[in-house]
Amino acid sequence: MSHSENVLVTSNDHFEVVEKTTIIDDSWPTHDQAVEDQTLDHFITREGKTFAGTHIIADFWGASRLDDLQLMEQALREGVEKAKATLLHIHLHHFTPNGGISGVAVLAESHISVHSWPERNYAAFDVFMCGDSQPELAIEVLKQAFTPTDVKVDNLLRGEVKIDD
Amino acid sequence: MSHSENVLVTSNDHFEVVEKTTIIDDSWPTHDQAVEDQTLDHFITREGKTFAGTHIIADFWGASRLDDLQLMEQALREGVEKAKATLLHIHLHHFTPNGGISGVAVLAESHISVHSWPERNYAAFDVFMCGDSQPELAIEVLKQAFTPTDVKVDNLLRGEVKIDD
Repeated sequence: MSHSENVLVTSNDHFEVVEKTTIIDDSWPTHDQAVEDQTLDHFITREGKTFAGTHIIADFWGASRLDDLQLMEQALREGVEKAKATLLHIHLHHFTPNGGISGVAVLAESHISVHSWPERNYAAFDVFMCGDSQPELAIEVLKQAFTPTDVKVDNLLRGEVKIDD
Repeated sequence: MSHSENVLVTSNDHFEVVEKTTIIDDSWPTHDQAVEDQTLDHFITREGKTFAGTHIIADFWGASRLDDLQLMEQALREGVEKAKATLLHIHLHHFTPNGGISGVAVLAESHISVHSWPERNYAAFDVFMCGDSQPELAIEVLKQAFTPTDVKVDNLLRGEVKIDD
């Protein structure tokens, strides 16, 4: 088991970037998990449809603490865990002066991204997961963390195979 | 101007991950660019609609070279450049045995993600850009790189402000 983390902070009068790269070796698949993970890469069939995965597009309005980098990281990690996905890499940027956060969690099953505008109390999330993960559970974790008053959600089936394929 | 790049390769009998993290300090905003970049974080109004940005969801079918990590990185970088966006961070995973690629380019203006299934000749891209960038030009670069026979594209307006807001 190993774990490495790099933090790089760069700033000038008008711009600051916090680069935080965490490589979570200990969450990488073991031999058995790797076999299981490979099946996640395969298309699944459900209710007569064959597709790669589910892509949830979620707009949060009236949300709080969208400038809180620590909460964002925590919520993304917890969302990945609740959805039963596998975190490979997480990367967040913290912008000044508005405190907005842009970043992504790359998963064995695809990704979660976030872009927040704290001054608008608005955040754009997308949660894309393949196989048997449950992306809707990640959305629930994000709702609990940022308490939006209004949420707009689109559920997209990605990679849906046409019947004549 | 500085430029740093880290490459980490980890593998076992069933799983290989190539971690490549490039920090492009010289593309970070200068003083003047930073002022301009801040305006990109602001919502824009076009044809009577106020919104944060455009999110293009693109499914490529019948595509080639979806297991080519070098081409993927090159296409993402060129797509960002053509769209006139600002690359902050790029991260790609290369899976075995199918050669699929998962990864993301984090931008000052949001992100481009990719998840590919070479055995299906299928790739799921999304290109989310705020402000005055042109995400559709990134899609054109990706088409030229991977030559899909069929492309399904959805254009989503993210963060559209309702009239009564």
